[in-house]
Amino acid sequence: MNHPWHDATRGPLDRARALLSELTLEEKLAQLVGLWPGSDVGNADEADVAPLQHEINAGQPDLAELLPHGLGQLTRPFGTLPVDPTEKAKLLAEDQRRIVSAGRFGIPALAHEECLTGFTAWQATILPTPLAWGATFHPELVEHAAELIGESLRSVGIHQGLSPVLDVSRDPRWGRTEETIGEDPYLVSTVATGYVRGLESAGIVATLKHFVGYSASRAARNHAPVSMGPREIADVLLPPFEMALREGGARSVMAAYNDIDGVPASADEALLVGLLRDEWGFEGTVVSDYFGISFLEVNHGVAGSPAEAAALALAAGVDVELPAQRCYGPPLAELVRAGRVPEELVDRSVLRVLAQKAELGLLDADYRPDPAALDDGARVDLDPPALRAAARSLAEESVVLLANDGGALPLAGEARIAVAGPLADDVAPLLGCYTFPRHVGVSHPELPLGVEVPTLFAALRAELPDARLTRAATAADVAGADVCVAVVGDRSGLFGRGTSGEGCDAADLELPDGQGALLDELVAGDVPVVVVALTGRPYALGRWADRLAGIVQAFQPGQEGAGAVAGVLSGRVNPAGRLPVGVPRDAGGQPAGYLAPPLGQAGEASAVDPTALFPFGHGLSYTSFVWNDPALTTATVPTDGETTVSVTVTNTGEREGTEVVQLYLHDPVARTARPVNRLVGYARVPLAAGASARVDLAFHADLAGYTAAPGRRIVEPGALELRLGASVGDLRHALPLTVTGPERRIGHDRRLRCPATVTPLPAPPPAT
Amino acid sequence: MNHPWHDATRGPLDRARALLSELTLEEKLAQLVGLWPGSDVGNADEADVAPLQHEINAGQPDLAELLPHGLGQLTRPFGTLPVDPTEKAKLLAEDQRRIVSAGRFGIPALAHEECLTGFTAWQATILPTPLAWGATFHPELVEHAAELIGESLRSVGIHQGLSPVLDVSRDPRWGRTEETIGEDPYLVSTVATGYVRGLESAGIVATLKHFVGYSASRAARNHAPVSMGPREIADVLLPPFEMALREGGARSVMAAYNDIDGVPASADEALLVGLLRDEWGFEGTVVSDYFGISFLEVNHGVAGSPAEAAALALAAGVDVELPAQRCYGPPLAELVRAGRVPEELVDRSVLRVLAQKAELGLLDADYRPDPAALDDGARVDLDPPALRAAARSLAEESVVLLANDGGALPLAGEARIAVAGPLADDVAPLLGCYTFPRHVGVSHPELPLGVEVPTLFAALRAELPDARLTRAATAADVAGADVCVAVVGDRSGLFGRGTSGEGCDAADLELPDGQGALLDELVAGDVPVVVVALTGRPYALGRWADRLAGIVQAFQPGQEGAGAVAGVLSGRVNPAGRLPVGVPRDAGGQPAGYLAPPLGQAGEASAVDPTALFPFGHGLSYTSFVWNDPALTTATVPTDGETTVSVTVTNTGEREGTEVVQLYLHDPVARTARPVNRLVGYARVPLAAGASARVDLAFHADLAGYTAAPGRRIVEPGALELRLGASVGDLRHALPLTVTGPERRIGHDRRLRCPATVTPLPAPPPAT
Repeated sequence: MNHPWHDATRGPLDRARALLSELTLEEKLAQLVGLWPGSDVGNADEADVAPLQHEINAGQPDLAELLPHGLGQLTRPFGTLPVDPTEKAKLLAEDQRRIVSAGRFGIPALAHEECLTGFTAWQATILPTPLAWGATFHPELVEHAAELIGESLRSVGIHQGLSPVLDVSRDPRWGRTEETIGEDPYLVSTVATGYVRGLESAGIVATLKHFVGYSASRAARNHAPVSMGPREIADVLLPPFEMALREGGARSVMAAYNDIDGVPASADEALLVGLLRDEWGFEGTVVSDYFGISFLEVNHGVAGSPAEAAALALAAGVDVELPAQRCYGPPLAELVRAGRVPEELVDRSVLRVLAQKAELGLLDADYRPDPAALDDGARVDLDPPALRAAARSLAEESVVLLANDGGALPLAGEARIAVAGPLADDVAPLLGCYTFPRHVGVSHPELPLGVEVPTLFAALRAELPDARLTRAATAADVAGADVCVAVVGDRSGLFGRGTSGEGCDAADLELPDGQGALLDELVAGDVPVVVVALTGRPYALGRWADRLAGIVQAFQPGQEGAGAVAGVLSGRVNPAGRLPVGVPRDAGGQPAGYLAPPLGQAGEASAVDPTALFPFGHGLSYTSFVWNDPALTTATVPTDGETTVSVTVTNTGEREGTEVVQLYLHDPVARTARPVNRLVGYARVPLAAGASARVDLAFHADLAGYTAAPGRRIVEPGALELRLGASVGDLRHALPLTVTGPERRIGHDRRLRCPATVTPLPAPPPAT
Repeated sequence: MNHPWHDATRGPLDRARALLSELTLEEKLAQLVGLWPGSDVGNADEADVAPLQHEINAGQPDLAELLPHGLGQLTRPFGTLPVDPTEKAKLLAEDQRRIVSAGRFGIPALAHEECLTGFTAWQATILPTPLAWGATFHPELVEHAAELIGESLRSVGIHQGLSPVLDVSRDPRWGRTEETIGEDPYLVSTVATGYVRGLESAGIVATLKHFVGYSASRAARNHAPVSMGPREIADVLLPPFEMALREGGARSVMAAYNDIDGVPASADEALLVGLLRDEWGFEGTVVSDYFGISFLEVNHGVAGSPAEAAALALAAGVDVELPAQRCYGPPLAELVRAGRVPEELVDRSVLRVLAQKAELGLLDADYRPDPAALDDGARVDLDPPALRAAARSLAEESVVLLANDGGALPLAGEARIAVAGPLADDVAPLLGCYTFPRHVGVSHPELPLGVEVPTLFAALRAELPDARLTRAATAADVAGADVCVAVVGDRSGLFGRGTSGEGCDAADLELPDGQGALLDELVAGDVPVVVVALTGRPYALGRWADRLAGIVQAFQPGQEGAGAVAGVLSGRVNPAGRLPVGVPRDAGGQPAGYLAPPLGQAGEASAVDPTALFPFGHGLSYTSFVWNDPALTTATVPTDGETTVSVTVTNTGEREGTEVVQLYLHDPVARTARPVNRLVGYARVPLAAGASARVDLAFHADLAGYTAAPGRRIVEPGALELRLGASVGDLRHALPLTVTGPERRIGHDRRLRCPATVTPLPAPPPAT
């Protein structure tokens, strides 16, 4: 039978409207809720992958009970328990068949999964964590990886990925710092937009999370309240969402767990409707974080029952209740029938869900649940060579060489190398919290990793076959070596089951698990020590920095990460990563990000100095660069004008390498206290030895805009300074810019980006 | 000659208007600025008592240059350099005579001083720091002390005191935590209002500071930006100002240094005019913090010059530039003459200053500069017996007995007592940062303290004449003693010249100066250890708490403080202090105040537990109390109604003692996320051994109000719980209360206070 909603020549919204008009209230609500099979296995302490999971999931209906009205969403078929991907893909198709045949209109469910560091499924490639993406300053590489991740998801019947995380890091004590792209809104915006483009280009719905404020919780405690005013929200937290929606085309947004100034995001109509829909024109779906609607009742105390929570969230603009039905099922139905919630609000959300299903082909007449990957009895491969290669590239580009005193690095090929640190031969410090082994696998200790993950010790052995590598556990073991590689790091996990990751917040930035004591011992000896930090957040390194021969920082670089780090240690890989978050000197004194006005910086008024030991943007290379001939095409621009900032970068060393040119804006006088420096553009500049390139950054006055009053973003005339730097602590050239003309109000259609072009220059004629 | 403004039968505003109409622009502006003699002595590192002091003060005009136009303000004649008070009082009178005779209208200057822990002058009584006032839960005692402080100020010709500090502690790492009254807005409000009443009753203008937000700076770094939304500002930061204005009659408010959400308080018209004047009806003066107007240019970057800073601050509602003229002098005059600032704005501020001068008698025809204290050649006594007695009472009531395991306390009169800790025979830990010795004296090392300040060691010797006291520096010295009293504490100072005080922020709450290592040693021995913490902020005590025989906490208790603490140790004084701030278990994880919604409390979602080791309100006694018969006069009240909460407290021990009954409100379902518990009332209940009293607390529904939306404070119907507790961690009785009727909007005229009455009960008939 062919219904109007089957007609793929009509627009998705048309098709959705046609279908909506046929649905009963129960059938509508069924589209807004989901089912999370397997989420009640195990016990909360060991197996919860979401807060409240076991408390709330007990007593949820099963598929058979739900089927008569249809089922809108399917939660994490691959990401909840260890399952063979091929078998699971078949079972998922089977579930879809049941859903399609049981409902009156044959509407398949939309299946979603986590996919932050790759598909969070057993046997799927494990990529670096987002903090490592940030370190690459390389959105195109992230885009490429995300496209491959999306293809993996799509190949097994998944429609929506619950990534990326767009929270701007505000306090690295937060356990989820590893999931952020860094502390700078522009870096987060551009890199996250790359990811979104990639995922969406594979046909997967990208989900921007967490909207908004989650990373700014009090003392960085997970879920704690956020104290913040409207200007900071608009200028620091929202820009990544704006860019990822406008330029990335993300089709879903996840409402955050937290409140800001007492108002939970999931109950914030001004945020989810006023800003997101009315001002930004977003047409996709808003989904709750897992049990986020129940949070309104259970945790925020702004609702007295599941029904009240449903009414609040629905009116505020949360379309879909994830991961299961608790509020949007019978409790909401009752309110609608009683006339206490207008059915139009239900329709508004259902229409969005159905339109997305139409877009995804789920309403097509020829929809078939079996993914092509299973055709002809093929087996699913979630760890294909192309994805592993992307994981390797990302990992290599993300390694940051923080310090290299006296040329201890690269390691000599035949050196006697003592490798210290309990995590040197452990895969844990390589893997983020949303990798399958750390997210789910740790609750199934018998389960193989599913993919090949060499440890750093193994990778070093392979990398340096002629070196004499020993495992050292104590300082005494190190004696006699030429160099000691001291590996320190995190073990990611959920809700206190690790040192980094969701719920694994830290009271301070002291290296975890007592690893600082080992460094105390090692640096007291005579053997030069190179620290390799494999972590999910920056840790304080000031206690040892002056006594180390080198420091290499990698942020949970994934299954190919050990090889990447070993490549940097050996010199095979010339490090090009730059810090997406400052590395602090001391363990206390947080938060202390670089993005602060003068009174937020070091000064005589406070005994506590927030200056990072290694600042945002810092990273060394095995070659050297000089920056010459900085210039502006015009030093005066109107408030709606543009100038191009240029600089010539020359690789003056003896090997190829990559410089990252960073453009910071300094606004000395404004209506509000403004950051001393903020990143407004950057360019990755790969250069052969001796080669030069001209870097052009097209700076539009919109990028000098800021929120002068709530809801009022302006560009104002006045003096600015454009600062070219190799990090925020290493500003090489300052170019004065005068903005003229009338103050200009700007909105969501403003320029968000400073496009960069890198033009190779001919080699200079040899000196005669 | 008798002018209309000399006529004391007319109202102050009338008199001010008459005088204003005669003044030239320069004469007007002169009323808004001051002179700070002596502020350029010494160098910035050693002697600055205000940020920017030496940078800005260089090149300021001297008195002779200013005189022709008059001089509105005189800055800290006693509080800047060590001076003999009698001589200085004479010199001040002499300066006033010069000012009066040089100007056309003979207007004396208004002289102001710091007076937080007593008059910050040499030889003046040193009282406990405000955190200790908070610990007394005894506003009447604070009021009495403040009245005596005011009389001292007045006796030497001072008109305005730059106290009290009404900032609610939000992060105890802040150096000025010692200057706050605690972490709870109701406690701060009631105690500060007592202080204001006392000071104003002596005829001194009290100055409420810092308006607003200063205590909530990022990572508690002095002057750092404040991230906060309008609801939290209204419900946590503003209430102390509301009560101190309405019930205390404060006549001046100081604009804070900091910005909130990018807007500096000194440039915030919505705050200083919209809220303070229009909504609250304040008619006194708004003064800048020292150099706070210059901050707009130099530190906040919201003004490009002193003139722009002046224009911003004047329009925003800052009437007086302290401590000297930089912006409100010639730069502002030029703007007014150029028509760029309306002269009406100048008039608005001058009128307030002149009206205040009229009120203070400075415009009276019979004004004479020589204070009565100098009559007949008398010498000034700033340390009179009554003030010392007030200092002693406050100190005694403020000592908090945190723990007393196994009855180690009180100390036996003949015990062998080893007193450890480098600060045990130092006055430093007894004195807050705004005491003269710590504020100014530290820059003049040769100067005697000026008042008698026994150390704790000396006080213990006097208190326990039969005990065998020894000074112990190490754990070995302690062997053989019956008990070790380990004294740990702060050395307050300014801008990094101490461990607590203005600018002496901490990166964490580890005991300063390595004193934790001493405790590590001491608790490892066999001798029971009693810790006495003499500090300006709470420090983490979790590492030792389980192994200590007792813990006594006193917050910089002043010159009589050692005697008070010794009295508690000996048992002469039965401790009655209660914590105004929680004492944390661990050094990290800040901020972690008790005033938080469910997601701000401990939970499974975060590995970091913010629960205090000793919670807000906690304090032990040498006697014991039972609480019986909790009751409400009515369990249902309308949204504008009242109920009385009652409980009977009985002293069941063998000596007199004081219980503090605390009333907390729990609001389970509200429009916004609300604190799980917040203090809404309390009563101090002194009881003889065996005696009982009925405590009644009149709870009005207004006290359940909160800010549901910016500018909209409401009382809503619903279920509440009134919780009677001995601390927020020791809730004894919970009484359900139902609020009925329509939601009610409330404003500045709402009830702010929960009046308490304590009625002694007749002793029960003896059992037969």
